[in-house]
Amino acid sequence: MKVRVIVNLKSSVLDPQGKAVCGALRNLGFSQVRDVRVGKVIYLDLDDVGREEVETLVDEMCAKLLVNPVIEEYHWDIVEE
Amino acid sequence: MKVRVIVNLKSSVLDPQGKAVCGALRNLGFSQVRDVRVGKVIYLDLDDVGREEVETLVDEMCAKLLVNPVIEEYHWDIVEE
Repeated sequence: MKVRVIVNLKSSVLDPQGKAVCGALRNLGFSQVRDVRVGKVIYLDLDDVGREEVETLVDEMCAKLLVNPVIEEYHWDIVEE
Repeated sequence: MKVRVIVNLKSSVLDPQGKAVCGALRNLGFSQVRDVRVGKVIYLDLDDVGREEVETLVDEMCAKLLVNPVIEEYHWDIVEE
């Protein structure tokens, strides 16, 4: 099973990488760009995991390693059974 | 309009960050993890852009700044009109 986890900075947290990308795009002439935020996407290829089990498993992985709950939020979906 | 661009390393390109995350998850006891790949997600908040214009615009931004076509591939979708 393949799971895609998307990790973003909370909207209240300043995103310097996003600001840098935003500035760079504007300098290139893309004046339509109002704001940019940058996050991570993590693809997990999991072995022998059922649909019931996967929810607990992914939440546990996020809590223990993938996500810093102080500044980040996440959501995930199954991209391949 | 808000656009989400997802940038991943091509599958033929080695992903050291993904390998590190994979090893760390296994060390934490998540033996079900077969492989991990890590990519970027970029949220663009765009001003005054129509549906016709957005496709050219986003592809141009990716070509000029956001994506390295030698090692990365991307896809994007509109998350908010």
